[in-house]
Amino acid sequence: MATLEEQAALGSGADFWTTKAVGEVPSLLLTDGPHGVRKQTGATDHLGLAESHPATCFPPATGLAQSWDPALARRVGEALGRESRALGVDVLLGPGINIKRDPRCGRNFEYYSEDPHLTGALAAAWVNGLQSTGVGASLKHFAANNAEHDRMRSDSDVDARTLREIYLRAFEHVIRTARPWTVMCSYNRINGVYAAENHWLLTQVLRDEWGYEGAVVSDWGAVADRVAAVAAGLDLEMPGTGGATDAAVVAAVRAGTLDPAAVERAAGRVGELAAKASEGRAEAAVADPADHHALAREVAAHCLVLLKNDGDLLPLPAGGSLAVLGEFATAPRYQGGGSSHVNPTRLDVPLDEIRALAGDVTYARGFTTDGEGDAATLRDEAVRTAAAAPAAVLFLGLAAHQESEGFDRDHIELPADQLQLLAEVVRAQPRTAVVLAHGGVLRLAPVAAAAPAILDAALLGQAGGGAVADVLFGRVNPSGRLAETVPVRLQDTPAYLNFPGENSHVRYGEGIHVGYRWYDARDMEVTFPFGHGLSYTTFAYSGLELLADAAGITARVTVTNTGERAGREVVQCYAAKPDSPVVRPPRELRGFAVAELEPGESTQVEVLVRRADLAYWETRADRWIVEDGDYEVAVGASSRDLRLRRRVAVIGDELRLPLTLDSTLGELQADPDAAEVLAEFFQPLAGADGDGLGVDLARMMASVPIRRIVGLGMGDVSLEELERALGEANAKRG
Amino acid sequence: MATLEEQAALGSGADFWTTKAVGEVPSLLLTDGPHGVRKQTGATDHLGLAESHPATCFPPATGLAQSWDPALARRVGEALGRESRALGVDVLLGPGINIKRDPRCGRNFEYYSEDPHLTGALAAAWVNGLQSTGVGASLKHFAANNAEHDRMRSDSDVDARTLREIYLRAFEHVIRTARPWTVMCSYNRINGVYAAENHWLLTQVLRDEWGYEGAVVSDWGAVADRVAAVAAGLDLEMPGTGGATDAAVVAAVRAGTLDPAAVERAAGRVGELAAKASEGRAEAAVADPADHHALAREVAAHCLVLLKNDGDLLPLPAGGSLAVLGEFATAPRYQGGGSSHVNPTRLDVPLDEIRALAGDVTYARGFTTDGEGDAATLRDEAVRTAAAAPAAVLFLGLAAHQESEGFDRDHIELPADQLQLLAEVVRAQPRTAVVLAHGGVLRLAPVAAAAPAILDAALLGQAGGGAVADVLFGRVNPSGRLAETVPVRLQDTPAYLNFPGENSHVRYGEGIHVGYRWYDARDMEVTFPFGHGLSYTTFAYSGLELLADAAGITARVTVTNTGERAGREVVQCYAAKPDSPVVRPPRELRGFAVAELEPGESTQVEVLVRRADLAYWETRADRWIVEDGDYEVAVGASSRDLRLRRRVAVIGDELRLPLTLDSTLGELQADPDAAEVLAEFFQPLAGADGDGLGVDLARMMASVPIRRIVGLGMGDVSLEELERALGEANAKRG
Repeated sequence: MATLEEQAALGSGADFWTTKAVGEVPSLLLTDGPHGVRKQTGATDHLGLAESHPATCFPPATGLAQSWDPALARRVGEALGRESRALGVDVLLGPGINIKRDPRCGRNFEYYSEDPHLTGALAAAWVNGLQSTGVGASLKHFAANNAEHDRMRSDSDVDARTLREIYLRAFEHVIRTARPWTVMCSYNRINGVYAAENHWLLTQVLRDEWGYEGAVVSDWGAVADRVAAVAAGLDLEMPGTGGATDAAVVAAVRAGTLDPAAVERAAGRVGELAAKASEGRAEAAVADPADHHALAREVAAHCLVLLKNDGDLLPLPAGGSLAVLGEFATAPRYQGGGSSHVNPTRLDVPLDEIRALAGDVTYARGFTTDGEGDAATLRDEAVRTAAAAPAAVLFLGLAAHQESEGFDRDHIELPADQLQLLAEVVRAQPRTAVVLAHGGVLRLAPVAAAAPAILDAALLGQAGGGAVADVLFGRVNPSGRLAETVPVRLQDTPAYLNFPGENSHVRYGEGIHVGYRWYDARDMEVTFPFGHGLSYTTFAYSGLELLADAAGITARVTVTNTGERAGREVVQCYAAKPDSPVVRPPRELRGFAVAELEPGESTQVEVLVRRADLAYWETRADRWIVEDGDYEVAVGASSRDLRLRRRVAVIGDELRLPLTLDSTLGELQADPDAAEVLAEFFQPLAGADGDGLGVDLARMMASVPIRRIVGLGMGDVSLEELERALGEANAKRG
Repeated sequence: MATLEEQAALGSGADFWTTKAVGEVPSLLLTDGPHGVRKQTGATDHLGLAESHPATCFPPATGLAQSWDPALARRVGEALGRESRALGVDVLLGPGINIKRDPRCGRNFEYYSEDPHLTGALAAAWVNGLQSTGVGASLKHFAANNAEHDRMRSDSDVDARTLREIYLRAFEHVIRTARPWTVMCSYNRINGVYAAENHWLLTQVLRDEWGYEGAVVSDWGAVADRVAAVAAGLDLEMPGTGGATDAAVVAAVRAGTLDPAAVERAAGRVGELAAKASEGRAEAAVADPADHHALAREVAAHCLVLLKNDGDLLPLPAGGSLAVLGEFATAPRYQGGGSSHVNPTRLDVPLDEIRALAGDVTYARGFTTDGEGDAATLRDEAVRTAAAAPAAVLFLGLAAHQESEGFDRDHIELPADQLQLLAEVVRAQPRTAVVLAHGGVLRLAPVAAAAPAILDAALLGQAGGGAVADVLFGRVNPSGRLAETVPVRLQDTPAYLNFPGENSHVRYGEGIHVGYRWYDARDMEVTFPFGHGLSYTTFAYSGLELLADAAGITARVTVTNTGERAGREVVQCYAAKPDSPVVRPPRELRGFAVAELEPGESTQVEVLVRRADLAYWETRADRWIVEDGDYEVAVGASSRDLRLRRRVAVIGDELRLPLTLDSTLGELQADPDAAEVLAEFFQPLAGADGDGLGVDLARMMASVPIRRIVGLGMGDVSLEELERALGEANAKRG
């Protein structure tokens, strides 16, 4: 049995990256991730800035999400686990699953999607893959951490339903289905309380409701008050504080202001974490850099989204001549800045990879990202180069310094010189395909207006260059889908006026209407919708069938490859509850599946919409409720390319809220039992009419709480009698 | 000295409309308003539904606001005062000044505008007019009562800045400048607490901050807990409750749970109110129905907004032939349903008034509002009638049963049969002017697309028919302006997805961006902008000058009537603070003035933008702050027809927030005194760079609270030393 001092010591790091060895509990090594292992070389410094060991840089989450492929995410997780093990890393700090509330969030490149279902499905697979190798995940950043601005103080003012349905939903899914060894609490406050000190979040929701049994670790430097954090349910403060906060914990217990059981529980969880890590270390780990690079290339190719392909400009003929343009063709942008920044084992250069597949390739830089050189000269050279070739591929995007952890963007524009280059290149060479590199969403209206073909490469990791070449020349048929809506303008985005907040407060004013939920509910045009992505072949949908049972709704649909090439179709399944008493989005992604089909081949795809995913968060009962009645299920190739839809009836959950004096006359009248018990009291109202006031009196009175009606002397009853009668009615309703 | 029982008795009504006479305090009569006196005839009933005495029905607030004319509002107030006095009414329950947050709010017809400045200016004038006659006003509904749905339970979840800048600002203005005898608290809750029980609202803000000395009366039936209400600052519960709540107050004082001083204060205020009323009654009152009808017509004519007038279709030639179409030409819609419903002394019928000014007038009903008759037959007859005349006037609008107190609309559409009629009439008769009657905003895109001329009559009261005729034939040159934006679609409106809320909660998610603030900040198209209104003449603007001094910003601009008719121009003055650290709307109405000009005449118009109106609500200091620096002032004929703009420097208020351990490194660095005191501690950070992470480290560190930096062992200082140093820096800053 550890002493109080030992227990307290277990609850904070030994230094920047390791925990303390205390008694029989060994030390653990945690390192940054998530799309590669960032294990620092040499001595640990105070900021975690030192160079790191080479490691495979897989596609960051923003790219990986575009695969819509949990199996691929799992394989990435496995590979990361092997590399972690080989480097002696026990816990890899990822996945980052915060919802992309606004395209300006500087860390969006580390997150998956604007949609909780897609996020949850991919992140759960990644965690399962990683942890299958004996390395722990750290599900982060818990929770409602959706901006970088003022991130260590910012208070997310967000209502319960929005939290549950949007910002906590993916966390809940991953925790319930993949059991990550650790959960990392975020820097920000949630409704006034720091995540690290938030008992509601860390204990009530995470443990009591979701049954989480792992350890809660702080984001690095997220603990403002260790004693409050331990009381709230934080197990491990990182990094270490030289023992200062351990002493504070001991002192608080001694002073009687902290329950010693909380310290013991936390220490126990760190001990269990160390035990899992020890077990994990027992197995040998092999991580072959060449194999992992090949995997990174395979994954990256699946993450590419073909946004537009007029006149089937792509794929390019193998061995054909080509002009390649843009700085990113030789200096690829493939990851973001900050704690996730990986030191790659190698780096594919797009121009080289294209040269390997094409015939005669000319190149012009076209622009610079650092402002060096004369823009007009660079542009003219690129235009000439493009005009001289039979086709051109133009690499555009954001430079690393424009997007990073630690700050948010204030716009979503491509640099003006790149847009001007695009316009002039396309004028000179109409057969121009654009390849985009960027961490966060860009305004693409000007690109879509100019370019006949657009390939969205987001951020693809170290093998992205090869993957782009594979897709450009049709060695891989693109099947990626957007995980985030591309809006027409920044001004159209849901949180436009509420982001990133002011005076350390962020109003989540759009509520549950994040991403496509907003554009759909407001019936707005977008440049490219959520889920959009083309293929070099085409698919037809037929024969949608729905079956509702205790598991949820099973949708079966036949998908046929109607084109000339083998291809992969991401079949998306959206559900809606029409005529709900609460506001519900016009459609929400509730499932998806993949069909890989040869030309002419058909298959029946089955997607289960889990019953739990049909639920909304009922604030009056503080729980999930599946509504009774007809649900509409639509399947298709994107959120706005829905091919088939049907309705099916679902038997809902019972929601019987007790009738009280604050119930309205209308609510009582709508309840058969209550109406019967109470009708006699409200006879006096029956005769009144509102003609003299030009109103429908019955409609007006229906919204009055019965307490007020009685208080005003209307109704033949006292409050006491009424309360008794309500008790009877409640009893009758059971 | 009254006994506790007597004091408690004074705090609630004797019956539905009167207070109790207690000791030397006489009884008072309060009646519904605000655009007419609704004094019930015969016995008082429990619901206040009985018929009322005839009284002049002036334009409801939605119409009156379109005058943009405080002098006119004052004259209406005076007339209402005379009628109240003549009927023995001591307090007239108005004005209603809630902000029109959403066009669907059922009671919008009783409110002025989406803008607090316009609302405050008009309502203050109205109160001054009314109270000059010895009759008290009741400023309502205090506060954040912006929907009818579930109004007696609904909780307005609204942040402090939004409350102050939008929802409380007009209340503050009226209370400070017009001192209404009473303020009426609303039914709803505000951030969890019923208005009637809201100590922050009724005492802290209303009395302690704004210095209000009048009486707070409850909306009828708004008190759920009288004891809590008295403690919060409610003085008078209406209507009476047969003594039940008086007894509860006495019991609470006896039990020690209610401060007897609160009961005494409330009774004292009711006593003062009664004393003012007694004084008011001393003077004789004369209210001539004919005079008041003439005033109602004059006012109504100024409330008409000429939205569109292609080819100068209007005014119509006096004495010319004309087809008049639409049910509203014979059965005018001129007020809304509910407590404000007035029994008019007479009612102008538009068709009759038009006949009085035109030559040969034909009429066809065109449609019915009750669904009677065959729509096609009615339509065909109207189309034939229109085609046979040289021009047509078509009356369209919403029927009384479509808008009322007690419920909200769920759409903003004109009935489909009316729109079809419009299309067919215009096809047959291109010279068709549309006259619109409605309480809440309508989607007018289809009307604007079809009709060459549109006259917005909103609701104009009993003399609206004559006023419409006056404007149609040019006896009055229209000068009204929209007090609310006409959006392109309901889906574009700021609160679209958050209105009217669910489960008794309303999220004010759009924050301060209500009305034109939203459309401007998001750069959205609208059908007709806030402040829009045409004239039969034209005006030119020149020579804008700005002068900033302690009073605010004085704008002087020369306005010239460049047309052929005398006319009245509402000169609107909008201000903005560019580059603010908080989000501020692109422009906000901060002043307006009227120029009445003969053809060719010029005048210099002066508008004072009060210094207080430049302020924003600073949440960190919990007070108004005028920012330092350049303000942009624009003047023009509408919020989107701004003719001239200039900038002027204003010396702002000091805002020195104390530096604390939660201040960020960036905040400290930005403060010269702090930077000097603290620089030495943070030397160790100076050498670090973020190249290894691909980040701008200085930018990233700038947002870290210094408490965390020290906690992580970065910085050569202990928390205690740092706190001492901060104390020094704070002292130095003074």
